[in-house]
Amino acid sequence: MLLKNGKRLYFPRKRVLEKPRRQIEERMINFQTSPDQYKHWKLNVAGPVATLTMDVAEDVTLGQGYKLKLNSYDLGVDIELADAIQRLRFEHPQVKVVVITSLKPRIFCAGANIYMLGTSSHAFKVNFCKFTNETRCAIEDDSRHSGRRYLAALNGTASGGGYELAIACDEIYLVDDGNSAISLPEVPLLGVLPGTGGLTRLVDKRKVRRDRADVFSTLAEGLKGKRAKEWGLIDDYFPTSKFQESIDARVGEIVGEVTQTVSLPSDAEASRLNDNESSQTNSLRYGITLNPLQVEVKPAGLEYKYVNLILNREQRFADLTVRGPEGDLPTTPEEIQKLGDAYWPLQAYRELDHALLHLRVNEPEIGLVCVRADGNVDDVLAVDQTLEANKDNWLIREIVLFMARVLRRLDLTAKSFFAIVEPGSCFGGNLLELLLAADRSYMLNNPDEIVEIMASELNAGALPMSNGLTRLQSRFLAEPEKATLVLARKEPFNTEEAEVAGLITFAPDDLDWEDEIRVAIEERTSLSPDALTGMEASLRFAGPETMDTKIYGRLTAWQNWIFQRPNAVGPEGALTNYGKPTQAHFDFKRT
Amino acid sequence: MLLKNGKRLYFPRKRVLEKPRRQIEERMINFQTSPDQYKHWKLNVAGPVATLTMDVAEDVTLGQGYKLKLNSYDLGVDIELADAIQRLRFEHPQVKVVVITSLKPRIFCAGANIYMLGTSSHAFKVNFCKFTNETRCAIEDDSRHSGRRYLAALNGTASGGGYELAIACDEIYLVDDGNSAISLPEVPLLGVLPGTGGLTRLVDKRKVRRDRADVFSTLAEGLKGKRAKEWGLIDDYFPTSKFQESIDARVGEIVGEVTQTVSLPSDAEASRLNDNESSQTNSLRYGITLNPLQVEVKPAGLEYKYVNLILNREQRFADLTVRGPEGDLPTTPEEIQKLGDAYWPLQAYRELDHALLHLRVNEPEIGLVCVRADGNVDDVLAVDQTLEANKDNWLIREIVLFMARVLRRLDLTAKSFFAIVEPGSCFGGNLLELLLAADRSYMLNNPDEIVEIMASELNAGALPMSNGLTRLQSRFLAEPEKATLVLARKEPFNTEEAEVAGLITFAPDDLDWEDEIRVAIEERTSLSPDALTGMEASLRFAGPETMDTKIYGRLTAWQNWIFQRPNAVGPEGALTNYGKPTQAHFDFKRT
Repeated sequence: MLLKNGKRLYFPRKRVLEKPRRQIEERMINFQTSPDQYKHWKLNVAGPVATLTMDVAEDVTLGQGYKLKLNSYDLGVDIELADAIQRLRFEHPQVKVVVITSLKPRIFCAGANIYMLGTSSHAFKVNFCKFTNETRCAIEDDSRHSGRRYLAALNGTASGGGYELAIACDEIYLVDDGNSAISLPEVPLLGVLPGTGGLTRLVDKRKVRRDRADVFSTLAEGLKGKRAKEWGLIDDYFPTSKFQESIDARVGEIVGEVTQTVSLPSDAEASRLNDNESSQTNSLRYGITLNPLQVEVKPAGLEYKYVNLILNREQRFADLTVRGPEGDLPTTPEEIQKLGDAYWPLQAYRELDHALLHLRVNEPEIGLVCVRADGNVDDVLAVDQTLEANKDNWLIREIVLFMARVLRRLDLTAKSFFAIVEPGSCFGGNLLELLLAADRSYMLNNPDEIVEIMASELNAGALPMSNGLTRLQSRFLAEPEKATLVLARKEPFNTEEAEVAGLITFAPDDLDWEDEIRVAIEERTSLSPDALTGMEASLRFAGPETMDTKIYGRLTAWQNWIFQRPNAVGPEGALTNYGKPTQAHFDFKRT
Repeated sequence: MLLKNGKRLYFPRKRVLEKPRRQIEERMINFQTSPDQYKHWKLNVAGPVATLTMDVAEDVTLGQGYKLKLNSYDLGVDIELADAIQRLRFEHPQVKVVVITSLKPRIFCAGANIYMLGTSSHAFKVNFCKFTNETRCAIEDDSRHSGRRYLAALNGTASGGGYELAIACDEIYLVDDGNSAISLPEVPLLGVLPGTGGLTRLVDKRKVRRDRADVFSTLAEGLKGKRAKEWGLIDDYFPTSKFQESIDARVGEIVGEVTQTVSLPSDAEASRLNDNESSQTNSLRYGITLNPLQVEVKPAGLEYKYVNLILNREQRFADLTVRGPEGDLPTTPEEIQKLGDAYWPLQAYRELDHALLHLRVNEPEIGLVCVRADGNVDDVLAVDQTLEANKDNWLIREIVLFMARVLRRLDLTAKSFFAIVEPGSCFGGNLLELLLAADRSYMLNNPDEIVEIMASELNAGALPMSNGLTRLQSRFLAEPEKATLVLARKEPFNTEEAEVAGLITFAPDDLDWEDEIRVAIEERTSLSPDALTGMEASLRFAGPETMDTKIYGRLTAWQNWIFQRPNAVGPEGALTNYGKPTQAHFDFKRT
């Protein structure tokens, strides 16, 4: 109903970054890339070992007015890293160890570029930190759920976001060259916090003693090998002459240790799967290829194959529709692998992910997203059945883990979400999570039409929130038996049943439907966007907190505050004056 | 060593609020009060039932330029409430139910006064919210650990902080008069969040479904009885004609249900304990009297009996010294009860609590507090032994619970804390918690002198942090066996042993001592105060989160951000324009 027709233009990936064609694209940040287009990273895959080498091209920046010296990064650099992590999981599932290192002499990574931060808007800084942290979380998700080990080989100094990248890895090794150090110099040098979860990972992941964490986080020059190891900030350090061989030895050990718990294609199968295209990675491709998403950019939105985004900019809300699968989908891992990235759950969620990132960064004034699901509930549930039945297959596992990450990206998006359930909608199973993730839901109550929702096995734990609970568990904290009832039911809920089951917020009848939704949209978009962001961040995460939610809820919230304070961004603030001959001056009142 | 002598002036409580005598007191907020001085609350105790009645005197305000209409409150009102809760625990331990209600017709409480908030500095708003939330936490602490039940009898509308007060109680009853409602109108009316933990308590304590919490928190007019009960926001509602009798009936039930697990004085003993002074409460006094703290106010600090605070304002740090107990202290509950509030742990921690509040609110530019403990370790440990041996006595229980609350107040104070351990210091047992709560510690390493610290049974769980862990557990998350070793050791740690045990941060020798501490102080006080606040809030709370830490870490951090945003406090912000003919205008960019 909300789809608009129009000539489909394929999004020219390369050109968008380098040569914007139209006004609408000029201000857009493109989240799509691929290894052959990387400017800042090299991805090399050799059997079970992948090496991700950072070699930032200082002139290839996303914004203007800064150079990416010393392997410092902006969002463009992190978009490549996120892409590489994602590709490793889908395209190179045989990889057991990922080594992250640098090609620059004596420097691993200097962190987020300060001049970029200094000249960015508040909203951009916040979104930048959120995205880079999600990339770090994706590394940890890979390590936790897919068993790949990440090893940070710090062949030079890692400061700020550079050390935050390292601390997202499973193991950290630092070169002992008399000079290289690790540091989080944000507090002493910039008057802000490490913006990508560094402080929380310090005490919660590496469990560094809090007084040592305090000293380390206020020490601009950081710590070198011996003390850093003693304090648990790194796992070991090696002299320059033995650095590479020590890393290689450790990588060899890990390769021997890691055993994949899921079935992978054999080398012979992998050879068959590989076409003859030249690959930057010089490796057999064991997995599937992630092709560029095809997206039609329109003045009022984006259209993908399964996702449609319409921007009602005047009214500051968007209509986001996910289309369910069509026709008979394959049910065996072999067929699915053949279908590759065109398989509905993978393609639809890649499109959804892209649309969410676009909304966050390119459409700041959109405050509310009305989510719809268009299609047949049974077809969605059939997909879930296939995913559940084959969850031990590596590709199915990666697809479900990816769907979970996209849904968490939605949970962490600073927009309101209303789910709208109408005739012809398909909020079943994995798409029911969209409704459960929404701040509210409206379901039409019209006995003359079929309006249904239904759970599947996938709602029982495969798609957890950042707090470790399912969305049903989070919803029914007071009445956990209700979650059980929803999962046990083997037929759809109509509107009245859904209301009784506690699955929906409002069930207006046909007469009130349009007015009620119109008024709800108008009311929501009239409220203070800041208050809504804080309110949703507080209400969405009832129940336990995890390291991930702490980073978002505690560290990020404090950082947001600090990013606004004159002591950081005022004319005399530390961030403003970094690298200038002028000095920062603080208002020393403690708050 | 740091004590200055001088004539002791007793702090004239009444006069300070009403008629400041000297410049230094003029800007000071006084945290001391007592029932006979209450302007806004009436405390009535009748046997096992206490009634706290809110009747705010609209002209008795702490600041200027606003009136406290409709039982709205400012910090002065909440200081009285905090005092009343505290007194109930110490002076009236026989109380089993506390009813909180209002004397104003048709209004329970309108929450924090908006005009007060609108004209307050950012730092004051933040400190105000922190204190009011600590008062709510004290109610919950009493309910959880001392078994008193709190009942909010909403005889009229409870909005904003009014409902936040109710939600801190165990049970909430609303009058059904066709008009009275509960609401959290901060988001829709003011563009800020409920500032006293309301949102978190909504979904985490009452476990209200998140979509319903979303609707409720955006509905300026709130909800009345029926829907409020259905959504779990209140426990029940009663018509006006039956309200009082229904509350009485419920109170009667609770009195029958609650059984005290600790020994209380008998009525006969209570009669003996009571002197003949007239009491506002018309009740036997079963407990001990909390007399006004005697504090000497000097230009450069405050001096109490056991606590000394010296403000080095130019250098922006304070020296806070707690003196250990002197001589032989009583060891039986009977003797301790006779000693009353002069018993060292109670008096010293009351003084410490007062000094912390003073530092927070009256000394915003002090960024660092150097904590010392002066005295004999053995004497402190002897006190702990008495407290541990008699923990089933009501008074000892209340004293230990209070010490835990004061230490948590320290954890949540936005100042850096360095513990300084020198010869003659007594960081043992409960005072070791001060060292463990500090961001860092410095312990002199001089074999020629006795410098020692030591744990006691009280470090094993009686004084938990807000995250539910002991400070030793928080410190040794990576090596829990170290916490066990510290607790098991039956003799003091000298400096080198303390360092090996992981208890201290730095152990400079005699030659470096003065320089090292001087430089550490200079460095710390040169850093951005905002970055330090955010950093400490992130590093102090490793490990699990609880509702209390979520309120502080998530909700409060978001609120801090929102309190800075132009959409709230700018010339066109919602908070600024509340109640004016002008309208708020928002920058709708979502962050």
